[in-house]
Amino acid sequence: MRAVTSEFLIELAAITGANGTLVDPADRAGYAGDASVHSGADFLAVARPRTTAEVSAVLALATRHGIVVTPRGGGSGLVGGATPIDPRPGIVLSLDRMNALRNLDPVGNTMTLESGVTLHAAQQYARDAGRLLGMEHGGGGSSQIGGNLSTNSGGNNVVRYGMAREQVLGIEAVLMDGTVLDLLYPLRKNNSGYDLKQLLLGAEGTLGVITAATLRLRPAPVHRATAFIGFETLTDALAMLPRAQGELGECITAFELIPGDGVEFHFAYVGARREPFSPLTPWAVLIEVDTAARGFDVESALTDLLAAAMEEGLVVNGAIAASDAQRRDFWKLREGLAVAMVESRAVLKSDTAVPIAAIADFIANAIAACQAIVPNCRCVPFGHVGDGNIHFNVLPAPGQSDDDFNAVLHLLAAAVEDTAIALGGTVSAEHGIGIIKRDALRRMRPAVQIDLMRQLKGTLDPHNLLNPGKIF
Amino acid sequence: MRAVTSEFLIELAAITGANGTLVDPADRAGYAGDASVHSGADFLAVARPRTTAEVSAVLALATRHGIVVTPRGGGSGLVGGATPIDPRPGIVLSLDRMNALRNLDPVGNTMTLESGVTLHAAQQYARDAGRLLGMEHGGGGSSQIGGNLSTNSGGNNVVRYGMAREQVLGIEAVLMDGTVLDLLYPLRKNNSGYDLKQLLLGAEGTLGVITAATLRLRPAPVHRATAFIGFETLTDALAMLPRAQGELGECITAFELIPGDGVEFHFAYVGARREPFSPLTPWAVLIEVDTAARGFDVESALTDLLAAAMEEGLVVNGAIAASDAQRRDFWKLREGLAVAMVESRAVLKSDTAVPIAAIADFIANAIAACQAIVPNCRCVPFGHVGDGNIHFNVLPAPGQSDDDFNAVLHLLAAAVEDTAIALGGTVSAEHGIGIIKRDALRRMRPAVQIDLMRQLKGTLDPHNLLNPGKIF
Repeated sequence: MRAVTSEFLIELAAITGANGTLVDPADRAGYAGDASVHSGADFLAVARPRTTAEVSAVLALATRHGIVVTPRGGGSGLVGGATPIDPRPGIVLSLDRMNALRNLDPVGNTMTLESGVTLHAAQQYARDAGRLLGMEHGGGGSSQIGGNLSTNSGGNNVVRYGMAREQVLGIEAVLMDGTVLDLLYPLRKNNSGYDLKQLLLGAEGTLGVITAATLRLRPAPVHRATAFIGFETLTDALAMLPRAQGELGECITAFELIPGDGVEFHFAYVGARREPFSPLTPWAVLIEVDTAARGFDVESALTDLLAAAMEEGLVVNGAIAASDAQRRDFWKLREGLAVAMVESRAVLKSDTAVPIAAIADFIANAIAACQAIVPNCRCVPFGHVGDGNIHFNVLPAPGQSDDDFNAVLHLLAAAVEDTAIALGGTVSAEHGIGIIKRDALRRMRPAVQIDLMRQLKGTLDPHNLLNPGKIF
Repeated sequence: MRAVTSEFLIELAAITGANGTLVDPADRAGYAGDASVHSGADFLAVARPRTTAEVSAVLALATRHGIVVTPRGGGSGLVGGATPIDPRPGIVLSLDRMNALRNLDPVGNTMTLESGVTLHAAQQYARDAGRLLGMEHGGGGSSQIGGNLSTNSGGNNVVRYGMAREQVLGIEAVLMDGTVLDLLYPLRKNNSGYDLKQLLLGAEGTLGVITAATLRLRPAPVHRATAFIGFETLTDALAMLPRAQGELGECITAFELIPGDGVEFHFAYVGARREPFSPLTPWAVLIEVDTAARGFDVESALTDLLAAAMEEGLVVNGAIAASDAQRRDFWKLREGLAVAMVESRAVLKSDTAVPIAAIADFIANAIAACQAIVPNCRCVPFGHVGDGNIHFNVLPAPGQSDDDFNAVLHLLAAAVEDTAIALGGTVSAEHGIGIIKRDALRRMRPAVQIDLMRQLKGTLDPHNLLNPGKIF
C-alpha cells in the first residue's frame, strides 16, 4: 500500500508541477476542513492543478490508484462539504491556482472565469465592465466561484436574481475518470439535449469537479436606495413584503428580517451601539431597491412607500440611508448579527426555508419547539424573507452554560428542521447538505428520491471516489 | 404477441377509466404527431390518465409488458418530440385530462398546476391573481405546461425572465418504472441534495413524465410601453440593444428583430398592408418594456430613448403604441412573419442562437452559406436579439419551384446550423432536438457529452421505453 501511495504521489507531483502538490502536514493544515467542520479524515496531499488538463490528469490518476478526492474552493462552506471524511487514502483537490478571467463580453453580458476566482474578484470584474454579477452573500466574498456553483450558493439578493444556478450559462467540468466536459456555452437559450451542467450545479462536488464557468451579467444599477424600517410586530414586518412588491415591483434586491433582540446581541458582541433609529423596535427589515433604468428614481419611490406605511401605522420608525457609509452601517447590523453568532461558542445555526406565507407559523412553531427543549432559550430568527429563507438561530437561556446548551444542540437542530419540513419547507435553503445535514435530509426527502440521487452518483462516479460521504 | 397486447390494453383501459384509452384509429389520429412531424410509427392506443397515480400505473404496466410510451402535451412542438417513431408496440400518453390548478399562493408568488393545463390557461390564472407568469411564446398558448417544461420552452420574454426552466420551483414526475417523484417544493431556495427536477426539465420526455409543476409568479406589470423602431442597417438595429439596456435596464421584456423583407412576406401572405410607419425600413425592432413599480413611467423613458436615438441618426423612424390595439398590431407583424413561413410549402426554419456579439457575423455568414447553395434565395433572419436566438429562415429564390428548393432543404439546414456552431452557438435554442435535429446535435456536441446523456437515459429508463429515438 505504501509503495502504491508513493508511486501515486510521485505521479501527482509530476502532473501538478512546482508547489502543485503539498504533502507537509503544516502546508496541508489549511485544507483540512471548511468554516463549519474543521477537520475530518487524514489525507495524503493537497493537489493544486493549474489547468483543466491537469485536473483531468489528477482525477484519472486518482481513479487508477483508487484514491479518494475531496474538491475544495474557498473553504467558507457551512456544512462540511469540503472536509475529507473517507477513511480510504485520499487527497484534497484545491482549485485555488485556477483563477484566470478567461473572457468578459460586455455586449453579450457574459463572463467566463476559472473556478478558483473568488466571488469578490468576480464581482469586481463585473463592476469594472459596468455590469453586475447577481451573486452576493454576507460571507465577505472569499468563497470561490467553483464552490459557489457546487453549493448553488444563495445570499442576500436571491429575491431578485435567484440562486447561483440561475447566474450560470455554462460550465467546464471534469468527471472522476478524467473526462472533460466543455459546456461553456455563453448562451441564454440552448436546448441541445440534456442540460448536463444542471447535474453538477449544487451537487457539492460529488459528481464532477467544476473547473470554469460562464456567468450571466446584468446592466449595473444606476440608482439605489436602502432603508432600515422598524415594526412593532412580526406580522407587520412580514406584511411589508407584498406592500413593497406592489409599489417597487422587480426592483427589490434585498428584504431582510432583523429581530431587535439580534441587533442587541450584535451590539453586545462588538461593544458599541450604533442604532439606525431610537428606540430600537422589536422587529426590523432592511430593504434595498435598485434599478438600471436611468429614468426611475427609486429613492423617491422608497421614501413615498415608507411615508405611506408610517401614516397607516404599519411602520413605527424608519431611516433611508443618506450616504453609502450609512448604507454600509445598515448592512453591518444585518451581517453583524450573523457574524456575532458564528463566533459564539454556543449557538444553533439553521438554514431553513419555508413558503413565504408560512414564515409567521414557522417562527412561532419553532420558538415553541425550542423552548420545550430549553426553556427561555433565546431564539433569533433572521434573514431572507423575500425568499422564505429564515435562519432560525438559537442561543442559550439566560444563565445556561454553553456546555449544557451544546449537549442538546442536536435536539434543537432537529426541532427547527422538522418544523420547517412540516410546513413544506427545507432543511437546507442555501448552505447545502455536506456532512452535517445528512440525517436531516433523510427526514425531509422520501427514500425514493435519495435512492435516485445515489443512482446518479453511481453512474458518474461508480467507485465512489469523488467527495464520498457527502449529501447521503 | 397479440394476446399479450390485448391483455395490456384491457389493463390499460381498467386503469384509465371511461374515455381514458383510445384505440379507434379515428380517435387516435389527432395524437400521431406534433406541429412539425405529423406522423411516425403506428401505436396501439392513446392513454389519457386523470391522476398522477394513474400515470404511475400506466407506466408500470407498460414496463411490465415492454410497451413503448410517447408522452404528449399540446402537440405544438416543432421538432417531432411527441411523434411516436419506435417500431416496437407502443402507446401515446396524453396528459390532457390532468388539467387542474392545484394551488395558487399570491403571497409566496407560486402556482401549482397539472401538466395538461394549457399555457394560455396558466397565464390567465396568474393574471386573475394580479400576477405574471414569465412564460410567453408566439405559438398562441395551446401548448401545455408539461410540454413547455419538457421542452424547456423559450419565447419572446426570455431576455427578461429566462427559459421555462427558470420559472419552475418544483415538479411532480413519474419515472418509467412507475416511481413517483414528488418534488413540488414551492421554495426559491432549496439546496437539499441533487436538484432532481433539473434532470427532467428539457429532457423532452425521455427521462420521466412530468405530471405537475409549481411555477414562480411575479408582480404583474403596472406600466408598459411598446415601440416599433425602424433602422437603415442591421448594425444600427443591433446597436439599439445595449443603448436600450443602458436606459431601461431590467425593464426590457422583448427585443425582437424584424427584417423589412419579412414584413413584406407577411403582408403578401395576409393580402393586406398595415405598416406601423411608412416607408418601411430595411430592418426593424419591436421593443417592449414594462415594470411592476408604480413610480416608474416606462412610456416616457421609452419615448425619450427613441427621440434621442432618432436625433443621433441611429433610428430612422419609429412608433410607440398609443393603444393596446396598436400594440397588438405591432406584435402581429412579428408573429405574422413566423406564421406566414410556417404555413409556406417551401421554407427552411431554423432555431439557432449565437452569442449576441456574434449576431451580425452569424447573419452575414449564413446568408453567404445559403446563397452558395441556392443563389438568390430569400433569407429572413428574425427573432430574439436580446438572447441571441435568431430564427434564420430561408425562402426559395425568385422563380425557383418549391420542389427544387425542398430538394436542398437539408443542405441549407446544415449550412445555417454549422454557421451557428462555428460561432459558438447552438442548433436548437428553444425548440429542442426531438427527431429532426438529432444529426445536428451530433455535429454540435462532442461524443463524450452525448455518451453521458445516453448513460443518464440508461440509468432512468434502462429498457429505453420512454420516448425512445428522441434527442439521440
